[in-house]
Amino acid sequence: MENFFSIRTVSWERNRVKLVDQTKLPGKLVFLYVSTPEEMAHAIKNMVVRGAPAIGVAAAMGVVLSVVNSRVKTKEEMLSRAKNAEAMLRNTRPTAVNLFWGIQRIMNRIQSLMHEDIETIKKTLIEEVKKMEEEDVEVNKQLGKIGSSLIDSGDTILTQCNAGALATVGYGTALGIVRAAVEQGKIVRVLIPETRPQLQGSRLTAFELKRDGIECRLIPDTSVGYSMQIGLVDKVIVGADRVTVDGYVFNKIGTYQIAVLSEKHSIPFYVAAPLSSFDLQNTHDKVVIEERSPEEIVKIKGRRVAPRGVPVFNPAFDKTPPGYVDSIVTERGIITRPLETNLPDFLNKHVGTRKGN
Amino acid sequence: MENFFSIRTVSWERNRVKLVDQTKLPGKLVFLYVSTPEEMAHAIKNMVVRGAPAIGVAAAMGVVLSVVNSRVKTKEEMLSRAKNAEAMLRNTRPTAVNLFWGIQRIMNRIQSLMHEDIETIKKTLIEEVKKMEEEDVEVNKQLGKIGSSLIDSGDTILTQCNAGALATVGYGTALGIVRAAVEQGKIVRVLIPETRPQLQGSRLTAFELKRDGIECRLIPDTSVGYSMQIGLVDKVIVGADRVTVDGYVFNKIGTYQIAVLSEKHSIPFYVAAPLSSFDLQNTHDKVVIEERSPEEIVKIKGRRVAPRGVPVFNPAFDKTPPGYVDSIVTERGIITRPLETNLPDFLNKHVGTRKGN
Repeated sequence: MENFFSIRTVSWERNRVKLVDQTKLPGKLVFLYVSTPEEMAHAIKNMVVRGAPAIGVAAAMGVVLSVVNSRVKTKEEMLSRAKNAEAMLRNTRPTAVNLFWGIQRIMNRIQSLMHEDIETIKKTLIEEVKKMEEEDVEVNKQLGKIGSSLIDSGDTILTQCNAGALATVGYGTALGIVRAAVEQGKIVRVLIPETRPQLQGSRLTAFELKRDGIECRLIPDTSVGYSMQIGLVDKVIVGADRVTVDGYVFNKIGTYQIAVLSEKHSIPFYVAAPLSSFDLQNTHDKVVIEERSPEEIVKIKGRRVAPRGVPVFNPAFDKTPPGYVDSIVTERGIITRPLETNLPDFLNKHVGTRKGN
Repeated sequence: MENFFSIRTVSWERNRVKLVDQTKLPGKLVFLYVSTPEEMAHAIKNMVVRGAPAIGVAAAMGVVLSVVNSRVKTKEEMLSRAKNAEAMLRNTRPTAVNLFWGIQRIMNRIQSLMHEDIETIKKTLIEEVKKMEEEDVEVNKQLGKIGSSLIDSGDTILTQCNAGALATVGYGTALGIVRAAVEQGKIVRVLIPETRPQLQGSRLTAFELKRDGIECRLIPDTSVGYSMQIGLVDKVIVGADRVTVDGYVFNKIGTYQIAVLSEKHSIPFYVAAPLSSFDLQNTHDKVVIEERSPEEIVKIKGRRVAPRGVPVFNPAFDKTPPGYVDSIVTERGIITRPLETNLPDFLNKHVGTRKGN
């Protein structure tokens, strides 16, 4: 439906990358133009652009910026620049696997083009990231359509953080399922925990759903259990920053406790994850959960809310064991329980021995 | 130990009530002097003073202000003023039962004094609220001492909101147990969820523990489950705004989900509640859970964090069924499982047919 959130979160525009500056939402919808891999690394670290699929595409574009905006004389010099950009971008955020997926895809492409001349390589790499941009939207629409079979008209869906258009190039994963259900004429309401510390629920999910006219209601993170207890939640759908081969779902902090509460209240818990969010190489114990600055907790919008010097624990993600997950929705189909066996089977069938991260 | 948080949250001072203005913490420790029941009702509604035991004493003092600061000529006029103050103060916040307990206690006292002359009544009522003020601290110290038997040296205790000195006249209930354990030389750490929307964890609990030199660490509300999953929590202790005869615990929003998560992780869940927090007349289904303004969610410290016009659900409390509660600590002893039978037995023994709220 063309009236759905049509702004692209990440897009390639004449040798620059145009990003929605998500740190300014919901107050202002402004764009940031990024021309160098350094600027892109900064934008990813500071969450100007965030959301696993979005940073996957953004990081790939960051590598391409290092190649197209430099006056390199040799292909070796070009490759060296790309590798520097790769290292820098890999070092921005550790948890979402899409980041590494996006970087690896573009590095593989560069390697495969080394027999071409420099101008051809540049042109082809630009085509490649433009293709990644388009594919991301298409994948999400496909995922959304498939996942919408899980939604009944009248459902109230609780999500976490923002797995929407703003977490992807466009359309969204968890919110892509909601959009697809609404496109089919289903009546769907979304209950949004504000998602401290970064408040992606309040700032981003509420923003994009309101803009699209999809009914939503905001709750503090402390109200998730009570909302379930009094019957306000029919289903939970969240995104994923990484799904490991053993079926663990890494996602925004707070997801795990929502999964436990869902089980307790017999509410289906669904994960929306494109194949680019699957880590085909690691089990859950190998994944680094990013810890972010205490400043995110002791200050809100620059204003201090906790005493000076109080210690803080601020993990940005958590992990949900496979036993809590009812289904994982991908662009190639739905993986159902038990994930421990069905997930490897699904990946074998649809991905094969995909090159690693 | 005299070096523990020695500021009284609520105190009677020469025909005025001196309140710590909790809306200004942790930035500034300032006091608000209240001289009329109208001012007291306003202070309770706006959470200048909050915490079930604190508002119980504050509301009783509010009734006494109506009597002592007015030039009434007859006892009937005095009683009429007290009843007006009573009605106004009863109407401030619906959930914490201590409010009604405090008001009822002082109204009973007034009725019992109607044979005295006006000056004697005024003097006696002032003595009564000063006594309530002292008793609150003594009750908390007794409760803390009893509850400290549940704490082992080395424990990390997760709490919720602020059930500390700032929620009472002094010393605290849940944090009173922590203080008592520390007084006994036990090493205790406290993990503090920030407790949105009002951030009592960040603003108040972190403030008073830091001031007392008790080791603490702040987490976002979204990290409770993950903190338990990775083994950071040994025990949970929370306060209570009301414990009903059927063993349901009404407390700050977020408590219920912490209880569910505690059960899931086999972590003991304790409630600290003085007898003034027990509702001897109602079962859980009769209790009104206060809903507060959407402004608390869409703005933080005056700064907007959600788009204009987004609907909000903002319940201030939730209810935890008795099955999740391992023990309730009171100033007269510990009530253990099963609460459904042990709680009525305990109340029969220690309270008898106490006059209602």
